[in-house]
Amino acid sequence: MGIIIKNGTIVTAKDIYKGDIRIDGETITAIGESLPAEPEDQTIDAQGKYVFPGGIDVHTHFELPFMGTVSADSFETGSRAAIAGGTTTFVDFVIPEKGKPLGTALDAWRKKADGHAVADYGFHMAITEYTDSVAAEIPTIIKEGITSFKCFLAYKGLFQVDDGQLIAVLENAGKHGGMVSIHAENGDIISTLTQRYQAEGKLTPEYHWRAHPAIAEAEAVERGLTLARFADQPLYIVHLSSADGLERIKQAVARGDKVLAETCPQYLLLSSDLYCLPDFEGAKWVMSPPLRPADHLEKMWEGIAKGYIQTVATDHCPFNFRGQKEMGRDDFTKIPNGIASAGDRFNLLYTYGVGEGRISINRFVDVVATAPAKIFGMYPQKGSIVVGGDADLVIFDPEATGEISVKTQQHNVDYSAYEGFKLKGLPQTVLLRGRFAVRDGVYVGEQGHGRFIARSASGVSA
Amino acid sequence: MGIIIKNGTIVTAKDIYKGDIRIDGETITAIGESLPAEPEDQTIDAQGKYVFPGGIDVHTHFELPFMGTVSADSFETGSRAAIAGGTTTFVDFVIPEKGKPLGTALDAWRKKADGHAVADYGFHMAITEYTDSVAAEIPTIIKEGITSFKCFLAYKGLFQVDDGQLIAVLENAGKHGGMVSIHAENGDIISTLTQRYQAEGKLTPEYHWRAHPAIAEAEAVERGLTLARFADQPLYIVHLSSADGLERIKQAVARGDKVLAETCPQYLLLSSDLYCLPDFEGAKWVMSPPLRPADHLEKMWEGIAKGYIQTVATDHCPFNFRGQKEMGRDDFTKIPNGIASAGDRFNLLYTYGVGEGRISINRFVDVVATAPAKIFGMYPQKGSIVVGGDADLVIFDPEATGEISVKTQQHNVDYSAYEGFKLKGLPQTVLLRGRFAVRDGVYVGEQGHGRFIARSASGVSA
Amino acid sequence: MGIIIKNGTIVTAKDIYKGDIRIDGETITAIGESLPAEPEDQTIDAQGKYVFPGGIDVHTHFELPFMGTVSADSFETGSRAAIAGGTTTFVDFVIPEKGKPLGTALDAWRKKADGHAVADYGFHMAITEYTDSVAAEIPTIIKEGITSFKCFLAYKGLFQVDDGQLIAVLENAGKHGGMVSIHAENGDIISTLTQRYQAEGKLTPEYHWRAHPAIAEAEAVERGLTLARFADQPLYIVHLSSADGLERIKQAVARGDKVLAETCPQYLLLSSDLYCLPDFEGAKWVMSPPLRPADHLEKMWEGIAKGYIQTVATDHCPFNFRGQKEMGRDDFTKIPNGIASAGDRFNLLYTYGVGEGRISINRFVDVVATAPAKIFGMYPQKGSIVVGGDADLVIFDPEATGEISVKTQQHNVDYSAYEGFKLKGLPQTVLLRGRFAVRDGVYVGEQGHGRFIARSASGVSA
Amino acid sequence: MGIIIKNGTIVTAKDIYKGDIRIDGETITAIGESLPAEPEDQTIDAQGKYVFPGGIDVHTHFELPFMGTVSADSFETGSRAAIAGGTTTFVDFVIPEKGKPLGTALDAWRKKADGHAVADYGFHMAITEYTDSVAAEIPTIIKEGITSFKCFLAYKGLFQVDDGQLIAVLENAGKHGGMVSIHAENGDIISTLTQRYQAEGKLTPEYHWRAHPAIAEAEAVERGLTLARFADQPLYIVHLSSADGLERIKQAVARGDKVLAETCPQYLLLSSDLYCLPDFEGAKWVMSPPLRPADHLEKMWEGIAKGYIQTVATDHCPFNFRGQKEMGRDDFTKIPNGIASAGDRFNLLYTYGVGEGRISINRFVDVVATAPAKIFGMYPQKGSIVVGGDADLVIFDPEATGEISVKTQQHNVDYSAYEGFKLKGLPQTVLLRGRFAVRDGVYVGEQGHGRFIARSASGVSA
Repeated sequence: MGIIIKNGTIVTAKDIYKGDIRIDGETITAIGESLPAEPEDQTIDAQGKYVFPGGIDVHTHFELPFMGTVSADSFETGSRAAIAGGTTTFVDFVIPEKGKPLGTALDAWRKKADGHAVADYGFHMAITEYTDSVAAEIPTIIKEGITSFKCFLAYKGLFQVDDGQLIAVLENAGKHGGMVSIHAENGDIISTLTQRYQAEGKLTPEYHWRAHPAIAEAEAVERGLTLARFADQPLYIVHLSSADGLERIKQAVARGDKVLAETCPQYLLLSSDLYCLPDFEGAKWVMSPPLRPADHLEKMWEGIAKGYIQTVATDHCPFNFRGQKEMGRDDFTKIPNGIASAGDRFNLLYTYGVGEGRISINRFVDVVATAPAKIFGMYPQKGSIVVGGDADLVIFDPEATGEISVKTQQHNVDYSAYEGFKLKGLPQTVLLRGRFAVRDGVYVGEQGHGRFIARSASGVSA
Repeated sequence: MGIIIKNGTIVTAKDIYKGDIRIDGETITAIGESLPAEPEDQTIDAQGKYVFPGGIDVHTHFELPFMGTVSADSFETGSRAAIAGGTTTFVDFVIPEKGKPLGTALDAWRKKADGHAVADYGFHMAITEYTDSVAAEIPTIIKEGITSFKCFLAYKGLFQVDDGQLIAVLENAGKHGGMVSIHAENGDIISTLTQRYQAEGKLTPEYHWRAHPAIAEAEAVERGLTLARFADQPLYIVHLSSADGLERIKQAVARGDKVLAETCPQYLLLSSDLYCLPDFEGAKWVMSPPLRPADHLEKMWEGIAKGYIQTVATDHCPFNFRGQKEMGRDDFTKIPNGIASAGDRFNLLYTYGVGEGRISINRFVDVVATAPAKIFGMYPQKGSIVVGGDADLVIFDPEATGEISVKTQQHNVDYSAYEGFKLKGLPQTVLLRGRFAVRDGVYVGEQGHGRFIARSASGVSA
Repeated sequence: MGIIIKNGTIVTAKDIYKGDIRIDGETITAIGESLPAEPEDQTIDAQGKYVFPGGIDVHTHFELPFMGTVSADSFETGSRAAIAGGTTTFVDFVIPEKGKPLGTALDAWRKKADGHAVADYGFHMAITEYTDSVAAEIPTIIKEGITSFKCFLAYKGLFQVDDGQLIAVLENAGKHGGMVSIHAENGDIISTLTQRYQAEGKLTPEYHWRAHPAIAEAEAVERGLTLARFADQPLYIVHLSSADGLERIKQAVARGDKVLAETCPQYLLLSSDLYCLPDFEGAKWVMSPPLRPADHLEKMWEGIAKGYIQTVATDHCPFNFRGQKEMGRDDFTKIPNGIASAGDRFNLLYTYGVGEGRISINRFVDVVATAPAKIFGMYPQKGSIVVGGDADLVIFDPEATGEISVKTQQHNVDYSAYEGFKLKGLPQTVLLRGRFAVRDGVYVGEQGHGRFIARSASGVSA
Repeated sequence: MGIIIKNGTIVTAKDIYKGDIRIDGETITAIGESLPAEPEDQTIDAQGKYVFPGGIDVHTHFELPFMGTVSADSFETGSRAAIAGGTTTFVDFVIPEKGKPLGTALDAWRKKADGHAVADYGFHMAITEYTDSVAAEIPTIIKEGITSFKCFLAYKGLFQVDDGQLIAVLENAGKHGGMVSIHAENGDIISTLTQRYQAEGKLTPEYHWRAHPAIAEAEAVERGLTLARFADQPLYIVHLSSADGLERIKQAVARGDKVLAETCPQYLLLSSDLYCLPDFEGAKWVMSPPLRPADHLEKMWEGIAKGYIQTVATDHCPFNFRGQKEMGRDDFTKIPNGIASAGDRFNLLYTYGVGEGRISINRFVDVVATAPAKIFGMYPQKGSIVVGGDADLVIFDPEATGEISVKTQQHNVDYSAYEGFKLKGLPQTVLLRGRFAVRDGVYVGEQGHGRFIARSASGVSA
């Protein structure tokens, strides 16, 4: 009693060809021309459709306690939005409390996710202080399948680590098979500007943006890469947002550094003009790093097309405009940072990337699924369409059209950062390990079907 | 009555997984776990073996009339060596006579190949003068499946075109779906030095090398890329040989140029010390561009690993040491240029690239097969392992060992440029369109089984 | 019976201080505090004035036969305009006829200048073909004090040399103490575009500009520098016009190339919008290379400030709008190329460079006088204010104001390319070898007082 | 009763010419041909000699309490060595104690110098913490003629400031006319390595070098420049030591940053091999940053020649081998850092720079005297040979020969870092403000003749 997807155009990060896919249980068991169906098999007609591997979003913050509130999507609602939008696996960030074991935080995050998530999931571990006990715990955490760590060069006085700590994490994690990522903004620059604007009474959302200039990203990218080279470790830059930061990455690649970079749809499609909307409207897009001026966008797309940027994730971290974003109505520093896009990423990338000719359809699959899987140790179980791999599949109708709106979104938040964005091409059916999560456009997923993925070491040496 | 390859580790340019491959007729019809075999099917046990797509060598010169002689491998012997060494498709260069139609030359080359080659083949067309009739013929040639053109920035007074001609070829070919490649050496520099050394009586093989400095390549790469940017066309650099040239390519990629680059095993594994061997021995490696000093080699490997170089071809163009190379015993300018390596490329790349950790196994497949197929319009018929694609496959034993030697090579030439190079990992069985060319290490190919491939436009926009 | 300039602020390329200058005969004999005047001495009060070394314009074309006509300024009128504008020495280009000796052309140019010029002068020699006789003549020409040579990478089919010829000139001149300069535009690109626009009937002045894109300059700069590096010789780029070309120079400096660059006021102050003026007005600024878009201008100024550009010359080559520029009313390729600015350079540089804070007053002196003198072998006779040097001096009133206009200019041409440009700071008095050429703002020069300067080898190794 | 220096070859940062110099009192009053001498004048014959402006060393540490001891040269002995070696002015660093006013430290340093120094002097102020009171004191300090400040990016836990502090100092000092310099080494990298080597028992002088890798300098240079660009202020890099750091400076110059760099003779002439000498001998060269491998040296020279490095100072900070360096015999972290070279700088630069053709004689004067004077607000009183300027002059015999040795040096330390270095060209006579400090090779200076120089704002906008 299997499933046969008939006559689809199968697309991987390198290949594109017509064929049938057979699923037995949770995995793909055959790909072929005219695969024979047995009586009890279900058959899905994918003629005229693409069959993509399920998307992987390696940057989410569900139910994150942050800035005096909690991000609006739970693991259930957030993962439902994700899978409805073609993303079958996500990796969320565990943020431990200072002075407490990493394991305690991991337990808390597991508890939020286990039995709730409707997509598969893993975790990164944030390191916001580097004490002897943290150092000692890192190998254990890696053994539990949390093989990636994140340090912040921003959030001075809160999460920010100094250069010595970053080096120590790079070396410790690297030695035990873990990889380090950084939030690459110079927290001292941000802090200097923030205090200045506060002192000057410049408190509107526009000044959140002005307090996070692109030079702060460029500096942190450069420094992070230099310290990683010193430590002889790869480095993964999360949510790269600016052409300035990208330029540093290009130089690093040219000199042979092991650098991996992630960007997000907001840095490809939205620009900083939004911060200047009247009536506190700009607060909707307050996030760190912030949106950049419009001339950055095509450069970021080119960064993807040319291979300088390997992955597109979301940094999904939504807050309601009413009641949450409004906390900072009189002071931008109190606006909780983040937007929702876990459900939009896959489709925005397809429409505005493939559809508008900025990236090839193979590159789309790579950045949205394959590279995340390889970089974060989930391949070949996840991230491609291969015999033996999990049957996480998106049957995608390139002719379907839609429009992003708060009215129709699955995200649990009261506005959409992409309100009114047209989509051409939509998931018709989504399978997670052989089970339907979306069928003919209707969400049919099931709470708790998502499973924790204990990840291996990075499969890409950069 | 098909063929089933059982339990192999299937490797493509992105994926690696275990599975069975079924071949019916000339193509792959299924990939699966435990594919059922019917009674009349042949079964090959590939347990512990890699299954790679057949290699594609996009730079050969079989039976080339050159420098007063003819390259030593015919289409039959050359393609036999190639396929025995894992390369199932090659693309040779048609070099038209000035003043005569391109079509005439194409006919001549077809005649040399058709019914003789034992591997599949296509052709590039060299453009050594750009007259009105050449201009008019280019669209026709493209329609016949010759979708790539080559201009020489070297060989002053013989093949060398000026900048205006290169621009014209780029624009004309580009408009009709053709792509242009260049031999990137500055012929004026070479000519200046050659005349100087001749005047000074410096006539040993060492001076062939000295007359072709890396700066001549760097200049021509830079200029070619600039003219291609001007013409808004991609450019493919054949046989990139030096770190200097590579540096220019890196800069071009960073600024967004559409550049594709090919190198050859000799520029990865052999160095210019060889030119200084006594007794005219250095003549064996006289080729253009020449081998470079040893410090270039790792940089070239890194160029492949980092994606700056997309393909590895051979520039296979052998001449016997006795009788041919010896023509230049008293004057290096009379030494016919070239070496044999069509049969060695695949295995050298595997042993010294994958085996020594310089490139991943996926990257190996990409540069040796997939990228050539895509860039030169043969994908998905060729270049990967997909349902519906030609069953050009290499079953590769990673534990087999060998050594390159004139005694054992298939090339029709009296020495090997790689004499004594050890190999770890060898093709066990090679199939071309479902038919055995090598079986359990024994060549079983058949003259004339090779087929002309009318190529489409480039499938990679660079 | 000397001259004493009292209390001026003496400015050299490095120093600025108050002092008196004593002139006896043709040279400066003392600089001091309160120098004593003898009864027969003339005294000039320079209180509140700058005393600058006389300007040196190393790029003029007086009485040049070109494009079927002759440039409008004779050596007399042109040099009068120059000296009235603070430039006491110029270097003009001898353009030999192909097939005739360089010496014959030099004689012709000497004849045009000797006894006519009112400022001192030297010559560069253009090399538009490189024959054995040209090669043999180069050392002789150098001995006669013509120590610099110019090759054109533009003007295909007319002046353009190929790479081999440029290398040969670099090596030959270099061996005998000469230096080579290039007109850095890729003539093949220009020719391709020109023919296209002509074929398309695009014949207005705007298309002169469009046919000379900045990429043509960038290519030629890069190639010229590469060939000079190959030849191990310095290279001087004349009339650098674009940020693109400048970028290549920056890279060359960073890698250690011996590169010297000149720009002209028009590439600092005028932009390509002018070509789109109606009624053929744009023809006034038709020159090669053309003006560039406005965003190049500040970058060119910064190139001067940062030391990437060493000299500012004029490429003075005027043609009357009536009767000359009009020759190309129906076809931009027939518009004689050039503008007048020999009389404006010094003052434009001061007002828009020093006055507007873009360059320091020392840098002004350097680019307008000292560097040209050193680079072209006239130092210390010319180019600074030192004891023993020629008393070529400009007493400059920083408070004087003026406006450039055809009505007031000394150039012998019927329009001004800088009509309406305001000036703040003007020469009050100009001396050439101790004799007044301008006194209190009135031209008092004398025909034929200018003297040929046999120049030494370049005093700057770059 | 003046002094006339007859017939010398006067050399400034741009000019070179023959002439006489007249001194009356403390300043130069005339430069001329055959200046008349009055009966009471002293006349010095400088035929065949160069006359240079007195050297300016902007980086000394006399009597510095450091690492539990005090640097071995007092202001008297140190300045005596300096002036005997052609350096007539120096700028020393005031290092305030944390928690105490800057003014208190300045007073202490003034006390050490006033009445003792035999050369003129100024001070830089180190900022090792940035409190409200330090912030408030900066404008006052600037008014007292201390117009330059130094921050350390190294010495973690001791002097090291964080990025926010550096930004604050840049902005505060810049607003009041002060300029900031940095010690550009990443203290976190150094600290990480130092602790590692200590833990591993690697305690010989070699590990001092290994703990200060060039990447630590490159990182700090890059970051410092980025923060200065953010603050829109120039930045002066003290004691640049490596090709890696220089590369970052080149890139910054190319993108338009306002960067100034200083190096020292040790980074031009000595290499890190010395650290591996047996018997603790390497301790003699323990300093921060350390010497670099030999392949850095020519690149540093080229940095000077090309203008990327503006000044050459010494970082003079000697400690006796016996009793002081020996404090670290068992632990390199206890070796006091520094060498003596105040007396050697001028002559080493001349012999190995000018004499060996690496830099021109004008460039020598610029880096050794003129640029330091301009950058640090002492021009035109100091730094050149101009009428009205201080008569600080070096009459230099280019034919004199010598050899550096502990036996003959004036430094108050028991070894020489340059033992055995040959010199060709030596000061014959040195004058400070018209008074002899060295006469015909004999030191005749006088304790306390040195005078404090209240410096103006930087005269070079970078």
